[in-house]
Amino acid sequence: MTRRLVATAITVGLLAVASFARADEGMWTFDNFPSKALKAEYGFAPSQAWLDHVERQTLRIVISGAGCTASFISPNGLAMTNHHCVAGCAGQLSTPQHDYAQEGFIAKTAADERTCPDSELDQLRSIRNVTADVRAALAGKTGDAANRALDAEEAKLQASCGTSPAVRCDVVSLYHGGIYDLYRYARFSDLRLVFAPEYAVGQFGGDPDNFNFPRYGYDVGLLRVYENGQPLANADYLRWSANGAKAGQLVFVPGNPGGTSRELTSAQLAFERDRALPAEIPENAEYRGQLEAFVGRGPEQAREANELLAGIANDYKELIGFQQMLNDPHFFATKQRDEAALRAKAKVGAFAEIARIQTVRGELFERQLATNDLFMSRLMRNALSLVRAAAERPKPNGQRLPEYTDQNLVAVERRLTSPIPVYKDLDTLQLTLALTYIQRDLGPDDPFVHKLLGTESPEVVAGRLVAQTHLDDRTVRAELYHGGQAAIAASTDPMIRFVVAIDPDLRAVRKAEETRVEAPTRTAAEQIAKARFAVYGTSVYPDATFSPRINFGTIKGFSDLQGHTFAPYTTFAGLYARANGFPPYALPQSWLDAKGALDLSMPLNFSSSNDIIGGNSGSPVLDTNADIVGLAFDGNIFSLGGDYGYDPVRNRMVSVDSRALLAGWRTVYHFDRIVNEIEAARKAGG
Amino acid sequence: MTRRLVATAITVGLLAVASFARADEGMWTFDNFPSKALKAEYGFAPSQAWLDHVERQTLRIVISGAGCTASFISPNGLAMTNHHCVAGCAGQLSTPQHDYAQEGFIAKTAADERTCPDSELDQLRSIRNVTADVRAALAGKTGDAANRALDAEEAKLQASCGTSPAVRCDVVSLYHGGIYDLYRYARFSDLRLVFAPEYAVGQFGGDPDNFNFPRYGYDVGLLRVYENGQPLANADYLRWSANGAKAGQLVFVPGNPGGTSRELTSAQLAFERDRALPAEIPENAEYRGQLEAFVGRGPEQAREANELLAGIANDYKELIGFQQMLNDPHFFATKQRDEAALRAKAKVGAFAEIARIQTVRGELFERQLATNDLFMSRLMRNALSLVRAAAERPKPNGQRLPEYTDQNLVAVERRLTSPIPVYKDLDTLQLTLALTYIQRDLGPDDPFVHKLLGTESPEVVAGRLVAQTHLDDRTVRAELYHGGQAAIAASTDPMIRFVVAIDPDLRAVRKAEETRVEAPTRTAAEQIAKARFAVYGTSVYPDATFSPRINFGTIKGFSDLQGHTFAPYTTFAGLYARANGFPPYALPQSWLDAKGALDLSMPLNFSSSNDIIGGNSGSPVLDTNADIVGLAFDGNIFSLGGDYGYDPVRNRMVSVDSRALLAGWRTVYHFDRIVNEIEAARKAGG
Repeated sequence: MTRRLVATAITVGLLAVASFARADEGMWTFDNFPSKALKAEYGFAPSQAWLDHVERQTLRIVISGAGCTASFISPNGLAMTNHHCVAGCAGQLSTPQHDYAQEGFIAKTAADERTCPDSELDQLRSIRNVTADVRAALAGKTGDAANRALDAEEAKLQASCGTSPAVRCDVVSLYHGGIYDLYRYARFSDLRLVFAPEYAVGQFGGDPDNFNFPRYGYDVGLLRVYENGQPLANADYLRWSANGAKAGQLVFVPGNPGGTSRELTSAQLAFERDRALPAEIPENAEYRGQLEAFVGRGPEQAREANELLAGIANDYKELIGFQQMLNDPHFFATKQRDEAALRAKAKVGAFAEIARIQTVRGELFERQLATNDLFMSRLMRNALSLVRAAAERPKPNGQRLPEYTDQNLVAVERRLTSPIPVYKDLDTLQLTLALTYIQRDLGPDDPFVHKLLGTESPEVVAGRLVAQTHLDDRTVRAELYHGGQAAIAASTDPMIRFVVAIDPDLRAVRKAEETRVEAPTRTAAEQIAKARFAVYGTSVYPDATFSPRINFGTIKGFSDLQGHTFAPYTTFAGLYARANGFPPYALPQSWLDAKGALDLSMPLNFSSSNDIIGGNSGSPVLDTNADIVGLAFDGNIFSLGGDYGYDPVRNRMVSVDSRALLAGWRTVYHFDRIVNEIEAARKAGG
Repeated sequence: MTRRLVATAITVGLLAVASFARADEGMWTFDNFPSKALKAEYGFAPSQAWLDHVERQTLRIVISGAGCTASFISPNGLAMTNHHCVAGCAGQLSTPQHDYAQEGFIAKTAADERTCPDSELDQLRSIRNVTADVRAALAGKTGDAANRALDAEEAKLQASCGTSPAVRCDVVSLYHGGIYDLYRYARFSDLRLVFAPEYAVGQFGGDPDNFNFPRYGYDVGLLRVYENGQPLANADYLRWSANGAKAGQLVFVPGNPGGTSRELTSAQLAFERDRALPAEIPENAEYRGQLEAFVGRGPEQAREANELLAGIANDYKELIGFQQMLNDPHFFATKQRDEAALRAKAKVGAFAEIARIQTVRGELFERQLATNDLFMSRLMRNALSLVRAAAERPKPNGQRLPEYTDQNLVAVERRLTSPIPVYKDLDTLQLTLALTYIQRDLGPDDPFVHKLLGTESPEVVAGRLVAQTHLDDRTVRAELYHGGQAAIAASTDPMIRFVVAIDPDLRAVRKAEETRVEAPTRTAAEQIAKARFAVYGTSVYPDATFSPRINFGTIKGFSDLQGHTFAPYTTFAGLYARANGFPPYALPQSWLDAKGALDLSMPLNFSSSNDIIGGNSGSPVLDTNADIVGLAFDGNIFSLGGDYGYDPVRNRMVSVDSRALLAGWRTVYHFDRIVNEIEAARKAGG
C-alpha cells in the first residue's frame, strides 16, 4: 500500500464529480470534515476537539523512501505503524549475521532501540490558506515563467514558515489548484526501531494474500521518536481500546493517503490506460522477474533484495488493479457522463485543453519514462543528488529546483550521508536493466542512448560504472556533498562524471514536461476547479496529497464477483489453519510455540468499508472515542481501483485487530516492557 | 517472426472487410491469386505454371516447435531458411564443448551434415475442397456434439488422404469456416543442418534491432532434406538470380504465414485488447526477466536458454505491437465502421452472438491461461503427451483428441523420442514460475491450486517434481510411449503421476472452451462468412493459417512517425560501421577477417512492402522470373500490427539480399561446396 506514493507526484487532474459521492467515500481534510452527513448516516459527529486530537496523531513517516502513517500510542514517543513500513529500516540495520527483516527485531531494553537511517516523521501543527499568495504570484504567467514563479513562491512560503531542520512546511495543492494550503509540520529525524515481527508473520500469506481477504497478518511495527537523544515527551497520543470493535461498528481511519486520480479527466485517464500503464506494467514485471531470480541465488541476495521484491510485487498488483478499473467500460462511461454533466453546467472549455495536452504528453512520454528508469539504481540516485545539490545550492533559495530548497536539503543530506548499505551486485542488475529499457524505448540510434552507452552495451556500461564508483561509501558521499561544486568538478568518480555529462539532457526532459504539460494542465485544472466550486462548493473532497486526511466506515464483509461472501473477522484459529510450513504460509517458531497460550477465537484481522489508498498503511483504526481498535495494513483486491473511484459494495480496508496486536506482544513475544507502556498510557490518558 | 505461431491456434474470427483492401495487402492462397489486380497495378501477372512452381517451393518447416518457411535451392534437397529458424536445431546439436548456436555450424562435407532432432518439412502436393463434407458432418449439431463431429470428420478426411508417415493431410479452415480445404503434403522428417552462421552475425543487432530497419543481418540457415538416408532428389527448385533486385522492383514472397486476426470482430478484438494482452504481456515480461537473470549466471546457462530468451523477447515486441495497434482509436473506429457497413448490408445477427460469447470467454479465460502456463516446462509437456497418448491411442481414430490421430502421432512420437536435451535447472525455473502464475491468477484458495500444490509452495513442488522425474531420459520416454496405458498406470515417475492426477481438470477446462466458445463462434463466423461471400465473393483473402500463401510488393523504404525517412537498402559498409565489438553489435572473427575481401558497397538487407507475419520467416523473395533475390527474415516495427491490419505506408518486410548471401558463403566462410551447388543449380535450372 505504500509504494505507489513515489509515482503519484506528477499526476495533475480535476475534481471528482458530486454524483460519485457515496456513503463512506472520501479522504477528507480535517478542516472540511462532513460532520453533517456523518451525523445523518450514523448518528454521530466528532467534536472539534476530537478532530484536532486525531489530526495531531495522523503522523506522516517516510522511511527509506516509503511513505506511511503512524500514530503515538504512549506519551514517550512510542509510535505504531505497519511491519511493511519499518521493514526497510530492519533490513538496513541487518548484517550478514542478523537479518532483522527476516528474523524480526525486538528492543529488549530502551538501550536496544536503534536509529533507522534515512527516516523522518512529520506531525502537522498548523494549516494556512495561501491561495491568494499563489494566485498573485502566478497572475498573468504561463509555461516556464509560471513554473518558476510557483517554485519561487513556494520556496518563499516555506522559508517564511520556518528554517529549522525541526520544521517542515509544504505548499499543498488541493483540488488540483483550487486551494493552496501551507502545511506546517514538526519534523523528527531520529526514529528508532522498537519492534518488528518476523517477516513470515508480518507478511504472512506474502504476495498471494496481498490485497486479498480473508487475511491473517500481524503487520505491525513500533518506532520510538527521539529528540536530543531522549525519547520524545508527547502529551497527546491515542489510547488503546479496552474491548476492540465488532462487526457493524462505525470506525475512523486517519492517515496520509499518498495520491489518488479521482479528479482526472477522461482524457487523462485514457492516457493512463493506453500509454502509461501499458509501458509501466511490463517494465515492472520484467524487473520483478530479474529480482525473483536474484533473490533465488542465495540467502545473502535474498537479504539484499527481498524487501525490494515485495515492493515491486506490490506495485505490480496495484498497476493491474488500476488497469482493470480503467478497462471497465462501466467505470469509464460513468466518468464521461459525469464530466459531460459538469461541462454542460459550467461551460468549461478547459476539458478540451486538457485533452489537447495529452497529445503533448504522448510526445514526451517515452523519453520521460526512460530518464526516470535510470534512477532504479541507488548509486545513480545518489550521484544525481550530489551533482544537483552542488549545482543548486549556490542559487538563491527560490530559484532552485524545488527538492533542493533549504528546507528540503535536510532530507537530501540525511539520505546521502546515511549508512544504508549499497549492494553493488543488486545495483548492477538495476542499472543494466535501466539502460536496457532506455535503449529499448528510445532505440539504439537515439543520440541520448549514444551519450549513455557510447559504443558499448548496457551490461558493460553498468558493470564498469558500478564497479568503479566509490559512491557506495558514505564518507565519499559526505565529502562530495559538503565539498559542493568544487568537489564535483574535481571528482574523478566515473558515476559522478557520467551524471555531470547527462544532467543537461535530464533537465531538458524535465523542463519540457513541466513547461508543456504541467503548467497548462495546472491552468486548465484550476479553471475547472473554480467552476466546480461554483456548482458544488466544497461538499466534495480533494484528491489525496500524502497529507493528513480522515475517513469513516463500518466493519463489514463483502461478496466477490463469483458470489462468495466473506465475514468481516478472521481469528488466530484461522491463522493456524492456514499455516502449512511453506513460505509464504510458514509461521515462525515464536508463533508455533505460542499456539497453546493464545485464545484461538480472538479476532486477528478485519475488513471495513473505509476509503483508503497507499500511504494509509499504518493508520490507526479508531472508534467514536478515538481509541485504537485496529491498525490498517491493506485493502482487498477491489480497493485497488480506489485510485480512480470508490466502490462501496466491494472496496474494503484490511486491519489487524487491536486485541490481536496486544496478544501478540504479550503472549507470543513476551514484550512486557511495551505492553506495560501501552497499558499505562491507556490508563493515564483516560 | 516465428514464435507467435504457437499462440494462434485457438483464435477464431471473421472476414476482413473489403474497404481494407489496399495495394500490396494480402496473404493470398495460390488458388485465389489476384492476377487481375496485380496486372492492373504492376503490368505483370504470373502464369499458372509460375504459380504452381512457386507453390511447390513454399515449404513449411517446424523445427523444435518453431514454424517457418523454406525453399529448395538445388536439385539435391538443399533448402534455405533463416538462421533463427535453424538456431534451435544448432543449439540442440551442441555440446558443452561446442555451442553451434553461438559459434555457427558449417558442414564441410556431406558427411558432416547432421540431423535436426524433432524437425519436419512439408511440401504441399494437392488441395481438395471438402466444405460440403464438413458441412454435412456438422449439420444440425451444436456445442460438444458439433466439435466431436468435426474432429471425427477431420480424422476421416486425414485417413482417406494417406496413412504413411511420409504424408500429412490438414483440414484447413479458410475464412473461419467459409471454406474447408484438405491440404495434402509430402512430409519429410530427416532434415540435416548444413549451415548456420555465428549467432553474432545471424542475429546482428539482437533485440534492439529486432523489428527495426535499417538493418544489417545475415539471418540465413541451410538444411538438406534426406530421404532413406540419401539427399532428396527434387527436380523442382528455385534458381538464384544472377543480379539481385533493385529499389522499386516488384517482388513476390511465398510463405506460410502463421496466423492473423484481421477477420476478428470488434468484440473479439476488444477482448484481446482488454483481457488477453493485459494478462499475457506482464507474464511474458516477468518470464523474460527471469530468463535474463538465468542466462547471466554463466556460459552454460546462456547456452541452455539464449535461444529461448531471444524467442521470449521476440514475443514481447510482438505483443507490444499488437497492443499499440489495438489501442489506436483510429484503427478501432475503422474496424467498427466497416463492420457496421457489412452488418447493414447483410443483416447478420451473428455479430451480436460473437459479442455475447466474449462474456463466456471472459469467465473461462483465467483458468485457461493458467492451465496453459503449466506447459512452459518441457518436462511437463512431455508428461502430458505421454499420459494423453496412452489414453487416446486405444480409441478409434475419429474419437481422439485431434493431436493424437494416427497422422499426428508421428510428430508426437518423434518429439518424445528425440535426443533433445532437457536442462533441469531451466525446467525448474519454468515450472516454478508456471505454478506461481497459476497460484496468482486463480488465488491460493482455489481447489485446482490446492490439487497442484497441496500445502506446499510453487518452488517446493516444482523443485521436487523436476529433481525426481526421469522424463529427461529419452529412453524412459520411449519406454513409456511404447508401453501405452499399462506403462503409464505402472509408472511411479512423480511427473507422470502428477499429470495423471490433474489431466481430468485440464480436459474439463479445454472442453468448456471448445463447447462454450469455439463451437458457437464457429457457427456465427460461418454465417458472417456466407453473408460476406454473397456481398464480396472471394475478392478478399482469408486470415493466415500456417499454410502456403503468396504476396507481392515492391522494394521501398519508409518514413517513421518522427518523419525520418529510410532508404530501402543497407550495405556491408553499414554493417561494419555499426559493429562496435559489444554484443549485440559484435561481429565474429570470420566477418572481421573478411572485411578487406568484401565489396563494401554490396547490398546487405532491404525493406519492401510485402505483407508478412510470423511463419513467413525464411521465405524466399522472388522476382518476376521466380528467381531468388532475397530471403525474408523480419518486419519493421510497423509490421507488428500486421496481425490486425496492413498499413501500406509504413509496414515493411526486411530481407537479406541474395548477393550478400552468396558473398557471405563465398568470401567469409569459403563454403565453396555450397556456392558451387547453388551456381550449378542456377545454370542447370535455367
